[in-house]
Amino acid sequence: MKFLPDFSDIEKAHLIVQQYAHRTPVLTSVSINNMTKGNLYFKCENFQKVGAFKFRGACNAVFSLSEEEAQQGVATHSSGNHAAALALAARMRGIAAHIVMPRTSPEIKKKAVAGYGANITFCEPTLQARESTLAEVIKDKGATEIHPYNNFHVIAGQGTAAKELIEGSGPFDIILAPVGGGGLLSGTALAAKHMLPECNVFAAEPAGADDAFRSFHANKLIPSDHPVTIADGLLTSLGERNFAIIMDNVDDIVTVSEEAIVEAMRLIWERMKIIVEPSSAVPLAAILEGKVDVKNMKVGIILSGGNLDLGKLPF
Amino acid sequence: MKFLPDFSDIEKAHLIVQQYAHRTPVLTSVSINNMTKGNLYFKCENFQKVGAFKFRGACNAVFSLSEEEAQQGVATHSSGNHAAALALAARMRGIAAHIVMPRTSPEIKKKAVAGYGANITFCEPTLQARESTLAEVIKDKGATEIHPYNNFHVIAGQGTAAKELIEGSGPFDIILAPVGGGGLLSGTALAAKHMLPECNVFAAEPAGADDAFRSFHANKLIPSDHPVTIADGLLTSLGERNFAIIMDNVDDIVTVSEEAIVEAMRLIWERMKIIVEPSSAVPLAAILEGKVDVKNMKVGIILSGGNLDLGKLPF
Repeated sequence: MKFLPDFSDIEKAHLIVQQYAHRTPVLTSVSINNMTKGNLYFKCENFQKVGAFKFRGACNAVFSLSEEEAQQGVATHSSGNHAAALALAARMRGIAAHIVMPRTSPEIKKKAVAGYGANITFCEPTLQARESTLAEVIKDKGATEIHPYNNFHVIAGQGTAAKELIEGSGPFDIILAPVGGGGLLSGTALAAKHMLPECNVFAAEPAGADDAFRSFHANKLIPSDHPVTIADGLLTSLGERNFAIIMDNVDDIVTVSEEAIVEAMRLIWERMKIIVEPSSAVPLAAILEGKVDVKNMKVGIILSGGNLDLGKLPF
Repeated sequence: MKFLPDFSDIEKAHLIVQQYAHRTPVLTSVSINNMTKGNLYFKCENFQKVGAFKFRGACNAVFSLSEEEAQQGVATHSSGNHAAALALAARMRGIAAHIVMPRTSPEIKKKAVAGYGANITFCEPTLQARESTLAEVIKDKGATEIHPYNNFHVIAGQGTAAKELIEGSGPFDIILAPVGGGGLLSGTALAAKHMLPECNVFAAEPAGADDAFRSFHANKLIPSDHPVTIADGLLTSLGERNFAIIMDNVDDIVTVSEEAIVEAMRLIWERMKIIVEPSSAVPLAAILEGKVDVKNMKVGIILSGGNLDLGKLPF
């Protein structure tokens, strides 16, 4: 078994994913283009099943299991979107999903995971608590762990969003994605660099959770240290597989302020009339703050998801 | 000149409207279908130019003017969406738009109208003040009044949304639209009853602004009396042309509570990940309250718009 997926694995993943996931629309906004001087194409994974790109990776991972493995079920720890994604993918295959969730996860995400029929175990909101609780669950059930991002099939599955974006609206001068654990970014970069070798792949990360930025520029993996950001999908630290792919396929990682994230999120809501979670707004925030120059460029942007508590908006 | 448009006028309007307006997408939601037991198709006019169906009618009215009329500009009073729509349509034709707006209109709507280059005159938020201020503006400028809904070309233009919905996703057992002044409802009913004679056309109205409900059931036009509702696009009273078309083409009008409007709006935001204004949620509110039975029915619903102050949400 290979450690790192390549484009052929994204192609294989796509054959699975397209059977179960939405081919999400790509939207543009005249007013945001006027404001940024770029030509921006937004791949709307907020419209994906479970409201986030995470369904692609979870789906590929679940349906890539052997029949024997599948019968033991799957397990993971996740702050929310991956949990819902894995729960739904497992239900589609008719197998059990065991989910370890931090007790501080947004209510809407807890409800979604429960609604997909998963077995939930709550834990403290620390990486250590998540990992030790998951280890117990796996020992108990014999389930296969599907890591939210540091997983071969998950990375290949996440790459299918960029593949669809490029197939439908490419070529692009720049592809932009947010980075948290690096599942979306590593899959996106693999797809983009194979399909469009001349395209620049950039990632945007909240300054308050900048482990990918620091790791990328130090050329070694540096874990997060008490990250704080409104972009709750990007609190996690990069995985090893993700980091290796990112180092070889991403051109730069930039950081953005919390204020820019909120401003970008509000702009997407007001001008595009779609609901995106803060993590989704991080790439546009990088453009608004001048960290990525898009003037006269054709730019593909992955909007990662649309799950958030509507009762707790930052505006 | 005919007083009331018919389907041939909607067809003519469509030849104009499709040159300038978006052919908006039609979305469905598995979870909302599960909840309502119906098969619901939402025509997303929140994605229309200026964020509302109103652009269709304004566009048809502006481009139906003679060259001589057009040179004098257009004028209207509007609480917001029609004002923005008329301003943009006028700019597209290169003529002046004079807009009378209640000073209490949402900030986002005031900004939008100003952004389209219209000449705005603010007035008190009463029908009387709107009409007298508009009369002064028209006398002063010689502009043609384009009424927000009681206008032949506006009605024909609004009917193009239902025409597209039926062409793309029909046939339907039921077509549902909100009703305020009746421009959208009268156009929708004309299109639906011509294209699908067996289809039931229902309208939903806030109980706090129920002039259409009372007029329909009394068989005579009864103006609004101090209407109060969160659905700010539906505060206006039915026009005579709208009423005449509605009486002959609408099967029933039902009312909904404010609570149901907010619940329906939140459901659309959370499940469909799109931003709609309260007026758009009124038809789904009628389904949630059991006022319209959609069990095992295929239902077309017009989502009228997506403009609202994000800083003043009801949840």
